[in-house]
Amino acid sequence: MVQKFNEHIVKSLPFLKEKKLLVACSGGLDSVVLTHLCAASKFDFAIAHCNFSLRGAESEGDETFVADLASQLGVECFVKQFNTEQEAKTKRLSVQMAARELRYQWFDELLTSKGYDYVLTAHHADDSLETFLINLSRGTGIQGLSGIPKMNGNIVRPLLSFSREEILEFATLEGKEWREDSSNASIKYLRNKIRHQIVPIVKELNPTFLQNFQHTQHFLRQTSDLAHNYLEELKSKLFRQRDGAVAIPIAELQQLNPLDAYIYGLLHSYGFTEWNDVKDLLTAESGKQVFSKTHRLLKNRDFLILAEIIPEIKGTYNLHLDKTSDGLPIKIQLEEVESFEKQTQNVVFLDMEKLIFPLVLRNWEKGDYFYPFGMQGKKKLSKFFKDEKMDLISKEKQWLLCSGDKIVWIVGKRADERFKVEESTRKIVKISWLK
Amino acid sequence: MVQKFNEHIVKSLPFLKEKKLLVACSGGLDSVVLTHLCAASKFDFAIAHCNFSLRGAESEGDETFVADLASQLGVECFVKQFNTEQEAKTKRLSVQMAARELRYQWFDELLTSKGYDYVLTAHHADDSLETFLINLSRGTGIQGLSGIPKMNGNIVRPLLSFSREEILEFATLEGKEWREDSSNASIKYLRNKIRHQIVPIVKELNPTFLQNFQHTQHFLRQTSDLAHNYLEELKSKLFRQRDGAVAIPIAELQQLNPLDAYIYGLLHSYGFTEWNDVKDLLTAESGKQVFSKTHRLLKNRDFLILAEIIPEIKGTYNLHLDKTSDGLPIKIQLEEVESFEKQTQNVVFLDMEKLIFPLVLRNWEKGDYFYPFGMQGKKKLSKFFKDEKMDLISKEKQWLLCSGDKIVWIVGKRADERFKVEESTRKIVKISWLK
Repeated sequence: MVQKFNEHIVKSLPFLKEKKLLVACSGGLDSVVLTHLCAASKFDFAIAHCNFSLRGAESEGDETFVADLASQLGVECFVKQFNTEQEAKTKRLSVQMAARELRYQWFDELLTSKGYDYVLTAHHADDSLETFLINLSRGTGIQGLSGIPKMNGNIVRPLLSFSREEILEFATLEGKEWREDSSNASIKYLRNKIRHQIVPIVKELNPTFLQNFQHTQHFLRQTSDLAHNYLEELKSKLFRQRDGAVAIPIAELQQLNPLDAYIYGLLHSYGFTEWNDVKDLLTAESGKQVFSKTHRLLKNRDFLILAEIIPEIKGTYNLHLDKTSDGLPIKIQLEEVESFEKQTQNVVFLDMEKLIFPLVLRNWEKGDYFYPFGMQGKKKLSKFFKDEKMDLISKEKQWLLCSGDKIVWIVGKRADERFKVEESTRKIVKISWLK
Repeated sequence: MVQKFNEHIVKSLPFLKEKKLLVACSGGLDSVVLTHLCAASKFDFAIAHCNFSLRGAESEGDETFVADLASQLGVECFVKQFNTEQEAKTKRLSVQMAARELRYQWFDELLTSKGYDYVLTAHHADDSLETFLINLSRGTGIQGLSGIPKMNGNIVRPLLSFSREEILEFATLEGKEWREDSSNASIKYLRNKIRHQIVPIVKELNPTFLQNFQHTQHFLRQTSDLAHNYLEELKSKLFRQRDGAVAIPIAELQQLNPLDAYIYGLLHSYGFTEWNDVKDLLTAESGKQVFSKTHRLLKNRDFLILAEIIPEIKGTYNLHLDKTSDGLPIKIQLEEVESFEKQTQNVVFLDMEKLIFPLVLRNWEKGDYFYPFGMQGKKKLSKFFKDEKMDLISKEKQWLLCSGDKIVWIVGKRADERFKVEESTRKIVKISWLK
């Protein structure tokens, strides 16, 4: 196996010879064999061992075993102990996910602080096949079947084209020792069933099953990359940024065929799952919505509006003259000024003596009306919103600046006629929305 | 199962109720159950049975069984006998592929001639899972894992969401009879190993394994469709038709990332398999080529030239005045004319008395030279081709019209100075290349 390993390195990962490497070693069969192979190939490497403190004395034994292995091989050994269960609780993760996060985070720190180039892990072809079958049993997409690549950033997996049998045979023939993980049998029921009952028969189907499987996963990753790039290109064409939300033109969406595939591809990363409802939105009345846990999708005339669900910030807030707008949901500044400039969308000038302080910032309510600046008479806000072609999400996000129960400014949109600066005005207040 | 079948039809294939259907029935378990379900659902259907004449008396027995089933249900029955082995030999196909072709060809004929709308086949979820595992064992891409859709043109598969167990249970409980195919055990070794040894344990991994698997295949088909559309869009941008070949700009190709995935995606349908060689072409010298069985890919300056490999038509051909160009590789017309018009790329006028008939049409040879029209002195053809920036494929396809051992016309490109019409010319010949 040493020879095959060397040939594989020369052919596929030749740069490793020149680099400073960290070998992730748990003390188990796979990573111990990887460590010995790196030593046999005279790589410039150190060992990194995570003690997740999950199996008491057994964990301590693993740590000692790996430290001994390192000194036996004459290489440096970094060890870190983690309180994995605590971390899992704090971050509300499964113990396995927490261990994974801690592990890769620590590796990153080591790479940076100690000047190593790559972390080597001992994933092999059987690991990939088992994961493939686990995901298949649960239902998955191309990602779940594509497996992990030989290289991903600074993580390298030089055993990915080797089988578990080869690794075991090497360790046995060469008399290498390793630590058995007692949790293997208990925790990982599904993986073990696959490993012991399914994989052996599946491999009998074809003498080169594992090699063929690697090619399959390689092709799937390629297709997955293409589809990903395509969807990103499509998003940059179809998704138009608008007021912190995304507007998607329905007519263009409907030209895509097969529509289902595009809708899923473009929107699944926003957490939607009710695809029939999403599809129905295309032809629904304006105002219809579909929600995911993180996003909402609103039909608004010729567009679908995709917006993140932001925790409610509704409420009423007081605004004082010359005070900073700390604690307000948006930045509004009030200041008395001498002269009057041209109003813009975000800056209005009003007659200060007509206002009752503190002013109040609030969202709109049913029945709201105001006297649009430059017009005669009053107008319902609902009518104003409609004329402005505002969608539901924009309406919900709209702030109103009020004096008592009167609307002074539809923030960023229109001031009220009643508070405008006139010839008789003695004090002018400048109100700015600082985006 | 009748109820579940009806619910499935209402939900997923409601239009079937209104249509004239042909149910493909071999006499085996699956298609017999499909036939009974169609009868129970009161579909408007007839039965179509193919007798492939592959199992002697057993095949005859199947035919009788299906005819009896039809008359028992009171529906029409179409039967056709095929000489499958002969067909396989003639078309150099496997017996299975030949049977498949004959079957679908006949169904198409029936649909058209008898006015049926759809053919129903009895593929079920286990068939898809078995095919998935067979392809996986051989190594495959997303196509090989995506399975067949519920509808494809006028073929509908209403049992695709049912398991083999459900189908068997229905037939057993309802006392329906069917014919066992004795070839199942012998021919289909791989499928049977998968069916009997692997699928049962795989299904134990998850109580909803088959349902999840159908969702997985649905997602894979979607991704596959997207990738396909993407590559077609890319081809229409990158593939430029040029002289019956395709020119692909290398600079644009090299901007694609991951390059491997794009090269494979864009070129695999042309039969290439040596992907490292193809990739090396991008940076190779002009003139390097990679061949597939059907196509060649040539590096030519800033382009890859993709061309079909066309059987050799090299040789020398005689051209007589006023004769049709039958038997020539290209259409060349010679005619004596009174007056002289402007020459074009495809039409030249020469001094007839300077020519030796019959003229000769041939490909270029090393050492060829001519006297370019409008220039002084002679020029090697290799130099002329170079100045014209012609690639290897164009050079190979170039025809020369000769008078004795002298080149008269580089067809479609340049005439020879020695044969031009002069003041002293008494007879003019017009030579046209009719594309």
